[in-house]
Amino acid sequence: MTPALKWRDRLAKPDLDTIYQLVKKTGVFSEEECRVARELAEDRLTRGLNSDYHFMVATVADKITAYTCYGRIPFTDGRFDLYWIACDPDMSYKGIATRLLSISEAHMRELGGKKLYAETSSREVYLPAHQFYEKNGFLRESVFKDFYRDGDSKWVFVKDL
Amino acid sequence: MTPALKWRDRLAKPDLDTIYQLVKKTGVFSEEECRVARELAEDRLTRGLNSDYHFMVATVADKITAYTCYGRIPFTDGRFDLYWIACDPDMSYKGIATRLLSISEAHMRELGGKKLYAETSSREVYLPAHQFYEKNGFLRESVFKDFYRDGDSKWVFVKDL
Repeated sequence: MTPALKWRDRLAKPDLDTIYQLVKKTGVFSEEECRVARELAEDRLTRGLNSDYHFMVATVADKITAYTCYGRIPFTDGRFDLYWIACDPDMSYKGIATRLLSISEAHMRELGGKKLYAETSSREVYLPAHQFYEKNGFLRESVFKDFYRDGDSKWVFVKDL
Repeated sequence: MTPALKWRDRLAKPDLDTIYQLVKKTGVFSEEECRVARELAEDRLTRGLNSDYHFMVATVADKITAYTCYGRIPFTDGRFDLYWIACDPDMSYKGIATRLLSISEAHMRELGGKKLYAETSSREVYLPAHQFYEKNGFLRESVFKDFYRDGDSKWVFVKDL
């Protein structure tokens, strides 16, 4: 059965640690990445609408189960970057990420969003991410060979909003 | 005759306005880009070595004639981004930009830099930039079609450090 999802675009102080733990729990992000995920949430919480980072948080029974972080790419006409999408691995089979992405995209369109970019590593551990993007209408636009380190390339996906 | 170039990696308060004016004078950057160029310099001046932005400033007769701004790309093993390179158009024929780039690359290697990326617009006004990168050992690795806006793509150049 589809769980009763709620979502909100406001962050509260306790969300910072929850977001850090959620990103860590996925098992695919480095310690530096987890710390930065928390920092972006802190930037949003501290600077409010002056922050370049928008958040959409999905909750089930008041517990954060997934979130997105996105923002307009500077110097572009409505191009957005999906900085982060993470889902509690215990809940990932319920289609929550797809519904959250769809809600986030609607919000980006309201903000004038025209294209959405998502960057990911080529490593095999990110295969579910690649499949997720392709299933949700993204196309792989470019490959940066050995971008993260030798043997670990960056793939950039894009979709029209 | 080659001018007596000096360079420094420290910024002083008056440099902020000078950098803004220099970027503006090139005539190829938008007002938003000029403002951000100044903000990055301010970040460096305020946060010192805690800033993610390194600067190298070239002076001729104590006047800033060119500068670079670069930094490590988060989550990568020694990959750097050349966020900015700008040269006073009155001085651009003297090879200052090439010498400054070379000094900046040496500094990046000292910081553990292994690859250097530079992003630029596909627009014709950036043709001198494209030629500059190619002349200095960069290869164009990817094209993001209509990245900045419809009809204005992003080209990403890369070189090994």
